[in-house]
Parts: sequence; C-alpha cells; structure tokens
Amino acid sequence: MKKTIAIDMDNVIVDIETNWINIYEQEFGVKIDRNEMLGKPEDMAFPDPVAARNLLYKPGFFRYAPIMPGAVEALTELNKNFEIYIVSAAMEFPNSLAEKYDWLAEHFPFISWRNIIFCGDKSVVVTDFLIDDHLKNLDFCKGTPILFTAAHNVNITKHHRVNNWVEALQFLREHV
Amino acid sequence: MKKTIAIDMDNVIVDIETNWINIYEQEFGVKIDRNEMLGKPEDMAFPDPVAARNLLYKPGFFRYAPIMPGAVEALTELNKNFEIYIVSAAMEFPNSLAEKYDWLAEHFPFISWRNIIFCGDKSVVVTDFLIDDHLKNLDFCKGTPILFTAAHNVNITKHHRVNNWVEALQFLREHV
Repeated sequence: MKKTIAIDMDNVIVDIETNWINIYEQEFGVKIDRNEMLGKPEDMAFPDPVAARNLLYKPGFFRYAPIMPGAVEALTELNKNFEIYIVSAAMEFPNSLAEKYDWLAEHFPFISWRNIIFCGDKSVVVTDFLIDDHLKNLDFCKGTPILFTAAHNVNITKHHRVNNWVEALQFLREHV
Repeated sequence: MKKTIAIDMDNVIVDIETNWINIYEQEFGVKIDRNEMLGKPEDMAFPDPVAARNLLYKPGFFRYAPIMPGAVEALTELNKNFEIYIVSAAMEFPNSLAEKYDWLAEHFPFISWRNIIFCGDKSVVVTDFLIDDHLKNLDFCKGTPILFTAAHNVNITKHHRVNNWVEALQFLREHV
C-alpha cells in the first residue's frame, strides 16, 4: 500500500505570500519587502495587520493566487508513488471553500475530489507525512512532519525543513 | 483527553431522505413511499434515478434540509464528554460546501469551524468513533464504527447499528 502524504495549500502549493503582497500593494499602494516579513506572524508583516487580514475575505483572494514554483511537477511525481491528500485549514475562511476547490481543479486536475480535505484542526487527519508551514499543524502530526519554509517560519528549528519543492521531492524520494 | 467522534452529516444529523423525497415530489409530482426505499442505493429508490441524483446539484438542496430528529440534543450532550468532529464527504458535490457550512452554523452553532471536516475519502480521518450510514466510510474506520440506520442500509449486518439518536447516545454514554 502506498504511503500517504497530507499536503497543505497556503504557502506550500499556493504562493500566498506573493499573492498577499501583490493585493496589499494594489489596495493600499504599499509594497512590502519580503525580507521584512521574515520571522513575523503573517498578518503582522504588513504595516496595517487588520487591513491585511481583511484581504483574506476579499472575493477572489484564494481563487487567483499563484502556484508555488515546482509544485505541479513535484505533485505529478509524488502522485505516482504516494497517496496524496491536499489538506487545507480552509474552514476558518468559509468564503475560501469554493475558491480553493476551483483553484485545485484548475491547477491540479489530477488530484481527485476524493483526495481533498478542507478542515479546521488537522490533528485527526492521520497520514504518513505532513508538509505544512505551520507548527499548529506539524506539532500534532502523527506521521513525519515536514516544515515547508515560509517567511513567517524561518526561525523555527523543529521538524525536518525543506526550502522548496526540489528539496521536498529529494526528501520524499528517499522515503517512498 | 476526551475521546474523538467523527459524525457524518447526510442521513445522520441531516434528514436528507425526507429532503430528497420532498424535493423530488415538488419537482416531479411523485411522492415516494419511504418503505419502497428500503435496501436500495439512495438514488435507485426513485423512479428516475438520474433525475433524483441531479437534484443534489440544485441550489439550496443541502442548505434547507431538515435536521435529523434528536440530533441537536444528542450533540449538545456528546459535546460535553467527547471531542466531536463533523465529517462530511462533501467534496463530491462542491456546490454543497458553502451550503453545508451555513447549515451547520445555523443548526449547530456550538460546533466550531475547527471541528468541521469536508472531505472525499474519510479513511485518513482517524477518530475513536465514526457514526455514518455508509460502509464505504465505516469499513475503513480505524476506531469503532457505528452504523446509523438509513433506508439504504437496512439489510447491512456489519458494525454496531443505532436506529436513531436516542440509541446512539445510549451506546456512547457507555463508552465515554
């Protein structure tokens, strides 16, 4: 039986940082330097954190976000040797449910609806691996947690870190 | 730590049979006798199974479905002694995602978004109990499966069966 991998969406297959920076600039005319985001909670990296957080409720925010570089190629390969589940804590933003579903259908048509999970708390989703950018998910993983680098998590020293999809593939090829 | 229960929506907390019968009658003027549904796959219980299945895509089908009798009282009690997760295989009907979220917010406001899971395949959702009406979910349950009676499953002899929320509560009170 294939090993299972839970793969987060935002900051893992969705380049939500770039999206957030771009939309914040469009809305408020202020371009955030990505280096200034390092080590800060995501919304706190913006001059107006409340305004930044409100953008998450803006129609289209999740639907038109760019793909993380290398994600399509990586998931295409992983899909052959693992059972992949896309697991997104989408329930906090109910407006995102349909947008995330449509985003996946557009960019990852080879992922079946059977393998998509939208939840709140991920602790009862049990897979052999979890690739995520947040400790709130990774710390409760019953399999092997893999920390995917995002600006907000650069100072975290727990869990196996991968900086991009090339490194993630390299690690997982050794654990098929 | 509290034991965890995954609770299905359709035919468990949502009275989808009554809803389906009512909407089929509204649309096609034919009232289905519930006794004729016994032991048949859900859509096959209707004179025109394709038309019946198409009703699942009708806006409002999931949003305005009635609650299963006793479900609110039962979940209110269970919520004190267990960690409850609502786990619905909603992903097959992406139109249902927002409707199911809104339905839960209206009828079960005490269930946090953290405890809602919309998925396809439930096999990677691991809880101590799963209350569901379908073998496709119960057979892969790693905890204790509990079969909730629905017309389509009356002939199934696997798993512990509960006929209603009074029986479900009785069983779970003995397993806190």
